Amino acid sequence: MRILYHLPLDPGCRLVRILMREKALDFEMYAEKVWERRSEFLTLNPAGEVPVLIDEGDQVVCGSAMVITEYLEEVCPEPGFLGHTAAERAEVRRLMSWFDDKFRREVTVNLVDEKLMKRFLGLGEPNSAAIRAGHANIHYHLDYIGWLCDRRTWLAGDDLSLADITAAAHLSALDYLGDVPWKDHPGAKDWYARFKSRPSMRDVLADLIPGAPPSKHYSDLDF
Amino acid sequence: MRILYHLPLDPGCRLVRILMREKALDFEMYAEKVWERRSEFLTLNPAGEVPVLIDEGDQVVCGSAMVITEYLEEVCPEPGFLGHTAAERAEVRRLMSWFDDKFRREVTVNLVDEKLMKRFLGLGEPNSAAIRAGHANIHYHLDYIGWLCDRRTWLAGDDLSLADITAAAHLSALDYLGDVPWKDHPGAKDWYARFKSRPSMRDVLADLIPGAPPSKHYSDLDF
Repeated sequence: MRILYHLPLDPGCRLVRILMREKALDFEMYAEKVWERRSEFLTLNPAGEVPVLIDEGDQVVCGSAMVITEYLEEVCPEPGFLGHTAAERAEVRRLMSWFDDKFRREVTVNLVDEKLMKRFLGLGEPNSAAIRAGHANIHYHLDYIGWLCDRRTWLAGDDLSLADITAAAHLSALDYLGDVPWKDHPGAKDWYARFKSRPSMRDVLADLIPGAPPSKHYSDLDF
Repeated sequence: MRILYHLPLDPGCRLVRILMREKALDFEMYAEKVWERRSEFLTLNPAGEVPVLIDEGDQVVCGSAMVITEYLEEVCPEPGFLGHTAAERAEVRRLMSWFDDKFRREVTVNLVDEKLMKRFLGLGEPNSAAIRAGHANIHYHLDYIGWLCDRRTWLAGDDLSLADITAAAHLSALDYLGDVPWKDHPGAKDWYARFKSRPSMRDVLADLIPGAPPSKHYSDLDF
């Protein structure tokens, strides 16, 4: 059985979870407290970070969510979420990088890491300037989602792709905290409502972190 | 003709340049002053970052160096630098991510960005705490390169791969500044000496930034 070492609110882990559900792959999850730096875990991934996938045949795959998604697209290509042509795949990967690099830096780190990860890691109080920056930056990205959806069915084109899964992985973590101003961004909200109703999201929407309950509308499909 | 929008000391741009030389692809380079936020450039890449590749047929490829390398491996697969099996490719991509994410965060940003990019962006004096952190962190990564080379011919296995190209792209930028303590790390030095002598590195070793000359041994193959 495949095993995914993860943390519930980590967007990279959510990305892999959602992709594996979309591909109907069976796996078990193990919540890895990375801050404990368990030696057996460091043997699997010397970087000490999640997600780490142990595939069938004990194949260890790690490094970043994108390393794991490229691997899964190779070993389980159907259904595929990267696109058919090299140009389509370049666009899907551009948007994956947009959300997993740029959005992470400008929004996720400022909100999820400040509000939750700092607490787990014992790194002190959240930095209020970072939180203000995260709240300010998110509007630009939600506008971009709306702009893309005015022109395309899904973020990268006609088909749902890893671009949507990556964006939803980050936004779902922020939505858990109640930090997404959906009412100001009807285009992005419509896109997320479509994505959220997929069976692949059920697992993520059932997450419950002890001591940090989700926002009221987090798992509500009609939010 | 292919065009690469780049900045000379940006490791992601160097990675793409070295890969295209290894693949014997013709291209022209255009140094893009990203801080000027030129509107024609923002139309190509709304993220406003380099590298951006314009491939034959005016295909725009951008998002991150890894997006471009995946594209080039697809459209120009020979010679390939990702490995033959899914397991080999997972290991190459894990190490690419190690150097392009973890090493970048822990070393490159603290040294190249603080010392050079801040000056170009008019962001003030370098932060001395960041520079100290970069100098402290680099030892751990050079040890890791030495550890890998004790067990393998190249970083990811028997063959030279994108793992080596990614690590060399970052280290060459730091070496331009004279910030790599080679004498303390003979294993890493031996690996870099082998890589540095490849014809694909000539272009990068000829870089010259006005007002910031390279370290004395930067282009010396017998350093």
